[in-house]
This record gives sequence, structure tokens and C-alpha cells, in this order.
Amino acid sequence: MALERNRILIETINRLIRRGATDRLKKIIGKVHEADLPPVFRSLSAASQHKLFYLIDDPEKKGYVLSELDEDIAADIIEDLSVAQLVEILEEMPSDDSTALIKILPPETADTVLNIMRKKGAEDLEGLLRYEEDTAGSIMTTDFIALKPEMTARDVIETLQSEKEYHDIEMPFYIYVIDDEGRLVGISSLRQLVVVSPSTPLRNFMSTDVISVSTDMDQEEVARIVARYNFLAVPVVDETRRMVGIITVDDIIDVIREEATEDILKMAGVGEEFVETKSIVRSTRIRLPWLFVSFLGGVVAVFIIGRFEENLQQGLAYLAAFIPVIMGMGGNIGIQSSTIVVRGIATGRINIHHLWAVVSKELAVGVILGIFYGLFLGAIAHLFFRVDKTTALAFSVGIGVLSSMAVAALVGSFMPMMFARLRIDPAVATGPFVTSAIDILSILIYFQVAFLLLGL
Amino acid sequence: MALERNRILIETINRLIRRGATDRLKKIIGKVHEADLPPVFRSLSAASQHKLFYLIDDPEKKGYVLSELDEDIAADIIEDLSVAQLVEILEEMPSDDSTALIKILPPETADTVLNIMRKKGAEDLEGLLRYEEDTAGSIMTTDFIALKPEMTARDVIETLQSEKEYHDIEMPFYIYVIDDEGRLVGISSLRQLVVVSPSTPLRNFMSTDVISVSTDMDQEEVARIVARYNFLAVPVVDETRRMVGIITVDDIIDVIREEATEDILKMAGVGEEFVETKSIVRSTRIRLPWLFVSFLGGVVAVFIIGRFEENLQQGLAYLAAFIPVIMGMGGNIGIQSSTIVVRGIATGRINIHHLWAVVSKELAVGVILGIFYGLFLGAIAHLFFRVDKTTALAFSVGIGVLSSMAVAALVGSFMPMMFARLRIDPAVATGPFVTSAIDILSILIYFQVAFLLLGL
Repeated sequence: MALERNRILIETINRLIRRGATDRLKKIIGKVHEADLPPVFRSLSAASQHKLFYLIDDPEKKGYVLSELDEDIAADIIEDLSVAQLVEILEEMPSDDSTALIKILPPETADTVLNIMRKKGAEDLEGLLRYEEDTAGSIMTTDFIALKPEMTARDVIETLQSEKEYHDIEMPFYIYVIDDEGRLVGISSLRQLVVVSPSTPLRNFMSTDVISVSTDMDQEEVARIVARYNFLAVPVVDETRRMVGIITVDDIIDVIREEATEDILKMAGVGEEFVETKSIVRSTRIRLPWLFVSFLGGVVAVFIIGRFEENLQQGLAYLAAFIPVIMGMGGNIGIQSSTIVVRGIATGRINIHHLWAVVSKELAVGVILGIFYGLFLGAIAHLFFRVDKTTALAFSVGIGVLSSMAVAALVGSFMPMMFARLRIDPAVATGPFVTSAIDILSILIYFQVAFLLLGL
Repeated sequence: MALERNRILIETINRLIRRGATDRLKKIIGKVHEADLPPVFRSLSAASQHKLFYLIDDPEKKGYVLSELDEDIAADIIEDLSVAQLVEILEEMPSDDSTALIKILPPETADTVLNIMRKKGAEDLEGLLRYEEDTAGSIMTTDFIALKPEMTARDVIETLQSEKEYHDIEMPFYIYVIDDEGRLVGISSLRQLVVVSPSTPLRNFMSTDVISVSTDMDQEEVARIVARYNFLAVPVVDETRRMVGIITVDDIIDVIREEATEDILKMAGVGEEFVETKSIVRSTRIRLPWLFVSFLGGVVAVFIIGRFEENLQQGLAYLAAFIPVIMGMGGNIGIQSSTIVVRGIATGRINIHHLWAVVSKELAVGVILGIFYGLFLGAIAHLFFRVDKTTALAFSVGIGVLSSMAVAALVGSFMPMMFARLRIDPAVATGPFVTSAIDILSILIYFQVAFLLLGL
């Protein structure tokens, strides 16, 4: 229902842009929910996105759209904004989104903007900017509710009603309790607040068993904690346990999505390609190294086959015809095994200490499938290749497929387990090494078996 | 910090199990947070998981652990539970988790359990069981707060305090407003509740612009809506707009993780292998069809090369030596292109209507990388293969790599775009078709070029 509404919105806006109906566009953009705008933007060309952005009036909406767009498009748009416009937008953004935006500004612009914002007494954005990327500090927001333990439920409710700064808070569900030094000592919730009697002090209805994260914790770990405990937000503390921010579940959803995407891309050796989707040069540079490893593997295969060249010439050239299928079957089951293992490690379903259990299961699957396809390919060779030693040929290709698939399942599961134990990211390392190892081993075993059986 | 605590817990429990220190284990299990138990279970062998489960006293904790464990392990454990134990556990679980558990019970046990629960006046679990898997209905919980619009803020707070059934509600942040027919007419939040004056009726502080989902909506769409609007929960309505449940953000996190995993596995042709990780037979059956498609592709390549057999025999067997590297380079860049496109479509970063923009970018990257590796391989052939027509050979393999990589980038990006437009899941279909198409085309072009240049 909501998505259907969205499709209609996208179509309408596309039509109005083609017609250049600026006034109607402005009216519609003013009315739609901010969350519906990013999909509209993504459906447009870069030029139209620019145009549409200037039709947004509300700086808060502008900020939201900028924070949701692809980095390269956002960077494009803000290039054309004046410093005054930028400041106006940044002031309306939650601190986690505004720091992200400042990071993609040209350095001089960022400095000017920060100076103006500091003079205006805005929050400590510079403090936030110092956290390293992908840490808890870099994704937290500094807008949260932290109160003293001696306040009563009635005091808390009055504070929520009167303090204007609390009205903008993104996720006002938890109430954090801090001591005089700002250290996190307890946590309560709006839920508790409405069920206790008004005179109860926070101290009496807060929980002191607070799970918090530190500013330098990796965002993936933060996501795991929030997901595991079903939190709506998790507090962030500095080295002295002073509370400095919170990370809300909506940002965790983004982290989980991002990390899944990264893992998928890394396995194909295109790790950071989503960062700047438009640049061909950059895409090329990102893909080059991964391809290089498998290129080297391929070159090794060239020399292996070259070594058997004379035999190939001696009337057995048809052996070459089976190279692609034998390599391909090994490559494919190798990808299957390594995918299962890499994803299993990432989701915690495979324990990296259960090495032999995992590898032997994969090997068993490889052998079963290898026997099946080996018999199949052997039969094809026997039926269609009427040469001197057709039975020997059939056995050779059959054993070739079997050994290639068995080795591939073994290597494909063993390598990511080993990489993980050596603390090398299995998603990055597995791809090229597994492919190359399988290519080389498949060819080697196939030719050795063939020349043995064919008596060359 | 929380994860470090977890590592220590896992080590302690493993040690106590080895020592058979049942009493101490029981004590520890009784004290730890339920969310810390599933990782402990996953670190253990199946037999130890069984043992540890029986040391849990609290039926609520038992229910939580069962809902978080892998399906096959949970099924194993509940096999040994009595009907009375099962009922006790099920009664403590949120309705979404209990229906999931009932689904893995043997049919007769499920019937008995449902009968007993019905007599005890438990909620309508049978009603929930009829929703199809992966729909909003199947993941929603029926525990939510729905009140009438004429109630005042004070009434609402009193209701929350007094009604015992509301104390167990998973995510008591939103207050849903329903009319006399149970139709959803508005939404408010605890947040609103504490800031309005006590005599205000719900009608006056509810929002009537409620986004809801229908029971049959796919869970992936639900996840997209919750993520887009940063909801903590989304209400579920039936055909008549009667409110029947809510889906909370913690369940959405699980959906997003699951769907990412599914996509990754589907691309490698191992779609549902995570469902039952232990069975070799099942793994084999799941992988067979995907491998079959690429097997057919390989067999076609056999006959293509076979057609050139005579030429290969005529002193040009070394051409065969380059088959693996040419096929491999095409295969690898094909995987890169299709991964980028499949994931881009899934995350909404690639619009399936921008077909030519996406394909031409990929093609450009393929051509650039093809030229690079073509020159590289040509140089290697020229240096190391001192045969009659060494320059022609160098050109053949160079053009072979270039065309293989260009075709692979083209096919690898075009196919998932086409599948998505034809509403075929690109993650499922892309793998085998892309691999096979690239294998066949690479070989064909390479041999045609080679025999042309070498004048055979």
C-alpha cells in the first residue's frame, strides 16, 4: 500500500519534471513525507535531481534528503549551495547526519561552515568529526535525554514537556540517568515513567544493569549488540564512562544493510565500488587487483597445459575440449562452498573452531556431486567421442570432474575458515585465492589422470 | 565490552560442561541475560546443547532460546520435550515466535498442543498459523495496545498501569487507536502521552496519517517500509482494515539479515541451504540444479572445442593452454558485474529502467580491463611461446581475453537487469545463466579469432 503510493508519486513527479511544471512540483514536494523523497530522487537523472532539490523549501527536509542520497549525488548538490544555505540545513539535521555531510564537503568550505556554526553556539560538531569512520562515535547522535537519579517521575514528565531541546529528539523512548560527572549510572523508559507513581524518584525505577558501547567500537559490533538484545537505542560512553551519545535502531538498520552489501561486494572483489558508482575509472581501479590474482592463476594454468603440449599434439587434442567443463564445475562448487562458509562465519552460524566438521561436510557434498557429474560427463564422452581409447577418455574426464569438484569443495571451505582464524577478512581474501587454486589444481589433476590412463 | 563479556561466558560454560559441573552451570544459566544464551548454544556440540537446554529453569528463557536457535537444533530439542513442557514454554513466548515454533513440531504434537492451549483460552494461534510464510501475517505479534479515541491521556495511563496483559507487551511505544469495529483510525505514542495534559482525549493527540501493512504483504516490503520511515513498529491490518497485529523493529532487523543472507546464497546457487545446515543429502539436492545449468554450458563448450579438434591437432595444441585463463578472466569480471547489479537492484541503488546507463558503464569497465589484461597476456604468449606464428598467437590470446571480458561485463550486467524487469528474481537466475553464457561465448570468440589470424 505504502509502496504503491510511492510508485504513483515517482511517476507523477517524473511527468511534471518533463513538463517543467515547477509550481505543481513545489506543492507536491512540500506535502509528501520526507521519507518518500529519496526513492523519487533515485529514479531521476543527476540533472533532474539537482532541479528537484532546489524546489524543496523546508531546510529539515533538504537535510533529510541529502543524508539519504548516494554520496556522490549529495556531494554534487552541495557543491552549488551557499555557505548560508548549508548552515541552515546542517542546523536542522541530527548530529550523526550533519557530521557525515560535513565530511564530504571540500575542506575549506567545511572549515567556514564549522566556524559559523560554532559562533552560533551549535553543538560540538568538531568533537564528533574526530571519531574514526565506522566506529560507534561516528554514527552516534548527541541528542538524548539524560537526567539525574533524584528527579521524580513527575519532574521528568515536566522536563520533557517544557525543555524545548527535548522536542526534537529522534528516539525519545529511553531515559538515561547520569551522575554529577555525567557518567551513565542507569536507564529507564517512557514506559516505566507512565506506570510508576508521580513521586517516585528515577533512582527507584531505573535499571542499573546498562549495556553501553564505547566510542571506538566498530559499528558492526554495535549492530550485533543492538540486534541481540532487541534494543531501540544503545548509549555510547567515552573512556571515563561519561555518556556522550546514543545510537538508535534506525541507524543500526542502515549499518546492517551496508555491512551485508559490503560483504557481498567484497566476495566478488568489488569491495568499495558502491561508494562512487558513477566513475568508470574508479570502478576499474577497484576491480584490477582481484582480477590480477586470478590472472596469475590462469597464467600458471597456461604453463601447466603447455608442458603437456606434445602429448596434446599426438592425437589427443580432444582432451582440451573438456578443460572448460572440468574447470567450470570445480569453480562453481567452490563458489558455493566458500559462500556458505563466508556467510556462515559473518552471521555467527559457523564457529571458526569447528574447522573439520565444516570442511568434511563440504567435502562430502563435493564428492557426491562429483560422482554424479563425473558419471554424466564420462557417459557423454563415451557416447560422442569415438576415438581410439574411448573408455580411457571417459574415465579421464569423469575422474577429472570428480577430483575437480572434490578439491574445490575442500579448498572453498578450508580457505575462508583459515583466513578467519588468521583474522584476515574471509570475504575479501576468499574469492581470488579459491578461484586460482581450484583452476590450477583441476587442470593438473585432470591432465595427470588422462595421460596416465591414456598411456602417454 | 558486551562482546568481551560474552567470550568469557562461552569459555566458562564450555569448561563447566567438560567438567560436568551441573550445579554451577544451572546457577550461571539462571543469572545470564537471555540474549547472551544463543551464542553460547551455538558454540556447543548438538549433544551439549541438549544438555544445557535442560538446565534452564525459566520457561520464558527456554522459549527465547528455542526461538533464536537454528531450526534444526530447535527441532531436535523439542522432540524430547513433553506436551506439558511445550505448552508451558509456548505460553510464555510472543505470538510470532510461538507460531514459528509450532510450525516445526510434528503435526500430531502440534494438534495436541494447540488443543490444550485453546482450552486454556490462549490467543488465537491457529489463526496466526494460516498466514503464508514470509508474509507480514506470519511475522507479526498480536500483542499490542489498541484503545478507543475518546479515552483521555489519564485513562490511557491508568489502563497501562492496571491491565496486566499490557505489561508483557514487547514494544510498548506506540498507542494504536481503533474504532468500534476494530479498524485502525489513528496512532499516538507514549511520548505524546506524557507531554499532553491529562484530560486530553486520544482523538486530539493522535495522528490519523497512519502507515500500515496488510497481512499478506511480503516481509521484505515490510522491512523496506519500516527502514524508510524509521518506525519502531508498524501496524498490520486485515482486508477490512481491522487491526490484527504489529511487527516490531527487532523482527525487521532479523528479516533484513535473513534476506541479505538469502540473496548472497541465491547468487551462488545454494538458496535454502541455511535452513538445515547439518544434512549432506539436503545440501547436495539444493546445489544440484544450479550446477546442472553450468554443466550444460560446459558440455556445449566441449562440442565447440571438439569442432576445432582437427585444427588443434595440426600443430596448434598450445591454443588449448590459454582456454583456462581466457575463460577465467571472463568468468570473474562477469561475477563482478552481476554482483554489482544484483545488489544494486536489491538495495534500490540501481533503477531497473536505467538499463543502458548501467550496461554501458559495465561494458566500459570490461573493455578497459580487457585491454589491460589482453596486452599483458599477449606479451606473455609472445615471450614464452616460440612457435611459428608467435605474433598471431599473441594477438589471438590478447583479443580472446579482451572479447571475453567485454562480453562478460555486458552479459553480467544485462542479464540481471532483464530478469528484474521480467520480475524473475535476479539473485536466483543470474548465477548459472551468466556463467554458462560467458563460458560458451568466450571459447567461441577466442577460437574464431585464433583460427582466422593463424590462417587455419
